[in-house]
Amino acid sequence: MSALPKLRERIAVPDGAAGAAAQQRLDQLTKPPGSLGRLEELARRLAEITGTCPPAVAHPVVFTLAADHGVAAEGVSAYPQAVTAQMVMNFLGGGAAVNVLARHAGARVVVADLGVASPLPGDPGLVSRRIGPGTRNMAREPAMSRAEAEAAIEAGIALVEDERPRGLDLIGTGEMGIGNTSAASALVSVFTGAPVAEVTGPGTGLGAEARRRKALVIERSLAVNRPDRRDPLDALAKVGGFEIAGLVGVILAGAAHRVPVFLDGFIATAAALVAVAIEPAARHALIASHRSAEPGHRHALAALALEPYVDLGLRLGEGTGAALAIGLARASVAILTEMATFTSAGVSGPADGPC
Amino acid sequence: MSALPKLRERIAVPDGAAGAAAQQRLDQLTKPPGSLGRLEELARRLAEITGTCPPAVAHPVVFTLAADHGVAAEGVSAYPQAVTAQMVMNFLGGGAAVNVLARHAGARVVVADLGVASPLPGDPGLVSRRIGPGTRNMAREPAMSRAEAEAAIEAGIALVEDERPRGLDLIGTGEMGIGNTSAASALVSVFTGAPVAEVTGPGTGLGAEARRRKALVIERSLAVNRPDRRDPLDALAKVGGFEIAGLVGVILAGAAHRVPVFLDGFIATAAALVAVAIEPAARHALIASHRSAEPGHRHALAALALEPYVDLGLRLGEGTGAALAIGLARASVAILTEMATFTSAGVSGPADGPC
Repeated sequence: MSALPKLRERIAVPDGAAGAAAQQRLDQLTKPPGSLGRLEELARRLAEITGTCPPAVAHPVVFTLAADHGVAAEGVSAYPQAVTAQMVMNFLGGGAAVNVLARHAGARVVVADLGVASPLPGDPGLVSRRIGPGTRNMAREPAMSRAEAEAAIEAGIALVEDERPRGLDLIGTGEMGIGNTSAASALVSVFTGAPVAEVTGPGTGLGAEARRRKALVIERSLAVNRPDRRDPLDALAKVGGFEIAGLVGVILAGAAHRVPVFLDGFIATAAALVAVAIEPAARHALIASHRSAEPGHRHALAALALEPYVDLGLRLGEGTGAALAIGLARASVAILTEMATFTSAGVSGPADGPC
Repeated sequence: MSALPKLRERIAVPDGAAGAAAQQRLDQLTKPPGSLGRLEELARRLAEITGTCPPAVAHPVVFTLAADHGVAAEGVSAYPQAVTAQMVMNFLGGGAAVNVLARHAGARVVVADLGVASPLPGDPGLVSRRIGPGTRNMAREPAMSRAEAEAAIEAGIALVEDERPRGLDLIGTGEMGIGNTSAASALVSVFTGAPVAEVTGPGTGLGAEARRRKALVIERSLAVNRPDRRDPLDALAKVGGFEIAGLVGVILAGAAHRVPVFLDGFIATAAALVAVAIEPAARHALIASHRSAEPGHRHALAALALEPYVDLGLRLGEGTGAALAIGLARASVAILTEMATFTSAGVSGPADGPC
């Protein structure tokens, strides 16, 4: 493991001065103070994270990491494992939801193969950072070795480093992997202490009975592996996934470079729990894009003390929620940079006196 | 009153077939059914309202109507009355929040003077539909005559008719008028039956004591005028405002032309209560853009059985919340039109069998 220790040293606390400058600017704009609510808060947070005012959102990138999960063999998903590779091809063709919503938000999508089981044809748009042909079945053995988990984190870091020369000032985290809500549920249970039943949801669309069986598979995975939350890499290796570990690297690299990290939904937030367990200061770079319909998401968000900006009942992943929030981030920066001030527009401030 | 009766006849119920076609398309797209949550619901509603699938959002327009309120003399606002005219100039200069957010959403802003008290310099961007130099003080007498209220509704209808040749496939409702949360609170109390204290908020930023005095002014306005909710024009005339009546016309015209109407916040939703009291079928054309921080908004939304799409604590008006929701509307239509289907992308559907 080479890049991570150096990266951890770079992760700093928010820049209070840049945040205060953003607030001061917001209060001079032609609107009652605070009347744009959380849009103002978002502009201020972007300033704090980036350490610049006004912050720029000129080159937002959604990183969509794909990998397969051995636990899919337990029948935890409504879809066959082949869908992971098929959806990677769909991402590359620009026809998936994340492509559409990222385009709408003016963000580019980086599609990376961290370990898809089925063979993928060569495509110039696909970044290959394969750790292996999918993880092992966590219901029977550790999903990854510790070395594999470390390699996947390093792969995520490398994805960010590779994109920086092309322009990268906001990161959205996305993923694809049949079976990965099971891995995410296991991680969220480990890191928040919430019971498995409370953090196990329908994923892509399980009914009540299939969901109960999914929870039993996750319980068994925890019993077989005994992941240790005080050793985040141990937990990640035993019940995580290649793409989840890759996102841990993406998140830590974003935090190290003061690039705001817009978490997508349940799986990305599970990765954030691991990242913050590895380096608590990384929390300052995180923005919760949206509240997923997946029930475990609220436990993960609460543990990170994050409040999402979008609440539309999405439960798709890929980076779709992050893409929607990137649109809000651009709007919040436009408010900061394009609105007139009371002085420039000749608008009177609040009335004097008691009214 | 000439245009309204004809308009009312045109207002139709939603087009179930177009909605069903949208749903069918959504279920063929490469994502688990329903996994884009309320974004899918929004696409379906746009299809139902417009009667076309896919619906188009190529020419969204935010109508920002401005007027002054006699009740401002009672000290119900944190800002002086001159701010209404100053903000109109700011809208025309493109420096207000609604300009920035509409630009971000690819919507144009139509700024109309329904009756601003201070003189406004001529400006080619300003649509003059003046009813008078502000309403009278509703705490002492009716804000408008019945004829003035009718004329303001007709003015709103004319605004929509004038924009249709330029392209108009989505309406956002915005407003500006110092004192207009007082008028809106009075209307919401009349049409929902909620107590004045529950529907009176800080507006542009009143403290607790000023807010209590504002509620007393609204109570007095209702006691002096005795508005009759069974006669919506009577209530609108007595405790409404020129821009609110104008928005009633905008809403009814949108509904008549099957153009989705994105209500902004508290004041626009108060106008919607009046519009629906005049013509109940108009409700089908309404989309609640966002949930305002103004406390009376929830009463108005509940009475209309509308659930907002954005919840960011905005309390600015102008059409800012509508502009944000227009961005979501465009995203929802892009999902419908740009995403690949399972067949076109060669992606497998849900696994057979019990899992």
